Amino acid sequence: MEVFTDKHLMREWSRRVRQAGETVALVPTMGALHEGHLRLVELASAEADRVVVSIYVNPTQFDRAEDLAKYPRTLHTDLKALEGTSCKAVFAPTEMYLPGSATWVTVEGLTDHLCGLTRPGHFRGVTTIVSKFLHVVEPDVAIFGNKDYQQRRVLEQMVRDQDFPIRVVAAPTVRERDGLAMSSRNARLPPEARQRAVAIPRALEAAKDSYDGGERRVGALLGPVRTALEAAGATIDYVEIADDATLAPLPDEARITTPAVLAIAAFFGGVRLIDNVALYG
Amino acid sequence: MEVFTDKHLMREWSRRVRQAGETVALVPTMGALHEGHLRLVELASAEADRVVVSIYVNPTQFDRAEDLAKYPRTLHTDLKALEGTSCKAVFAPTEMYLPGSATWVTVEGLTDHLCGLTRPGHFRGVTTIVSKFLHVVEPDVAIFGNKDYQQRRVLEQMVRDQDFPIRVVAAPTVRERDGLAMSSRNARLPPEARQRAVAIPRALEAAKDSYDGGERRVGALLGPVRTALEAAGATIDYVEIADDATLAPLPDEARITTPAVLAIAAFFGGVRLIDNVALYG
Repeated sequence: MEVFTDKHLMREWSRRVRQAGETVALVPTMGALHEGHLRLVELASAEADRVVVSIYVNPTQFDRAEDLAKYPRTLHTDLKALEGTSCKAVFAPTEMYLPGSATWVTVEGLTDHLCGLTRPGHFRGVTTIVSKFLHVVEPDVAIFGNKDYQQRRVLEQMVRDQDFPIRVVAAPTVRERDGLAMSSRNARLPPEARQRAVAIPRALEAAKDSYDGGERRVGALLGPVRTALEAAGATIDYVEIADDATLAPLPDEARITTPAVLAIAAFFGGVRLIDNVALYG
Repeated sequence: MEVFTDKHLMREWSRRVRQAGETVALVPTMGALHEGHLRLVELASAEADRVVVSIYVNPTQFDRAEDLAKYPRTLHTDLKALEGTSCKAVFAPTEMYLPGSATWVTVEGLTDHLCGLTRPGHFRGVTTIVSKFLHVVEPDVAIFGNKDYQQRRVLEQMVRDQDFPIRVVAAPTVRERDGLAMSSRNARLPPEARQRAVAIPRALEAAKDSYDGGERRVGALLGPVRTALEAAGATIDYVEIADDATLAPLPDEARITTPAVLAIAAFFGGVRLIDNVALYG
């Protein structure tokens, strides 16, 4: 496994691989790797000949300085964790933005809702950095996890609209035994908050059961979710059922008639967690 | 010379060329090709093994619907003109934006001034489409003309900030015998307006002479330019001396102490013309 901190050396490696007729998959991460990331690597290795994992805590996608400061940075452990996988190269740049950087890539519409509302500037930071990574690594395939559902959708739209020569693969959410979605942020949860946080997947599952049982009223599906999260001591950022095409939330009075997604963002012990479930068919 | 209207076929050609070890230069144009464009092609052929000319009237960079409607479209003649040159491939897409496109590439700062002020949204359209072309054609080199000085600078910043694996080459402005900068828009000038438009290069030249003679007062340099343009019946959009690093205009009371550019945008016979001269050293 090779580790690159320099953009040009990273690109040279990728071009050498592709010149030799092999394909490259990129798994962009912010490090603090967990089992979920390793499953992305596994999935990537089924999609291309060589897997590149990028590790970079991107400052432009943090809307709160405190969140950026507290984001776990564990490069040494991350590299160790990747050693046993099919990851062939790690891109861990020390600097991605030159002084005076002034260029942004933005996706309108999909970013108007959910995390786009409560984390101003977040998606602009994500699309700007991922576009840069695509220019440096030049992969054939990029893997994005479905836990960050809105992010995955926004990046797919960027790739499509900007004619990136890249195939996007969405990876299913990987969960802890009790159902909590794996996230680098889980490491920051105080133990009692970690226990309470299981309310998120349980509430999603209950809502999905209710939907599968025929319930289509948005308010009737969301009510129990909100109640369960509050009972677990969460501070709710949002709990919404969004139209899957636009990600615009449906009002409580509406009924679901087209594919939708139930999305949650909630704070437990000061840590913001997100999760979602598809309401289809 | 090959002509591609399909993005994927265009990219395949470019990849085939580069796979064979040759380099590709892209000359992006909106068609209505004139001698200035052909000089860009010549320059490009000195910079790379194969030259691609793109021809596409990009709707998103027009701030006025009337300007877009009146922009000359002469594909047949353009292809004829390129036949005799070292252009190896033409990319003339019929459609560049998929329905529902919502992604923008923007450059802040440099676009706050000059044409960025008087043509709202113009540069956002330019950077968005050029980024798309770079993803489709995947050139090693891109050629931008210096007549559109602010555009060239904005695109250079985009390429740098976004880590595009591309070298930008700036091409000198090509002029008619009387000094008028070549532009596709010149074809739309009524004959009498075409004659009057020579006031632009003459005013620039006079200002440059004055600068070379030691004049550093912004107002003293700009005054005669404004007077000459008005005497020629122009409707001035802007006449400014801008700091070359930021493109922010200097106030009339200031003195030039660092590299600057004198930039003009003015309407003659309803047609908007631009030109500029560097004030260095």
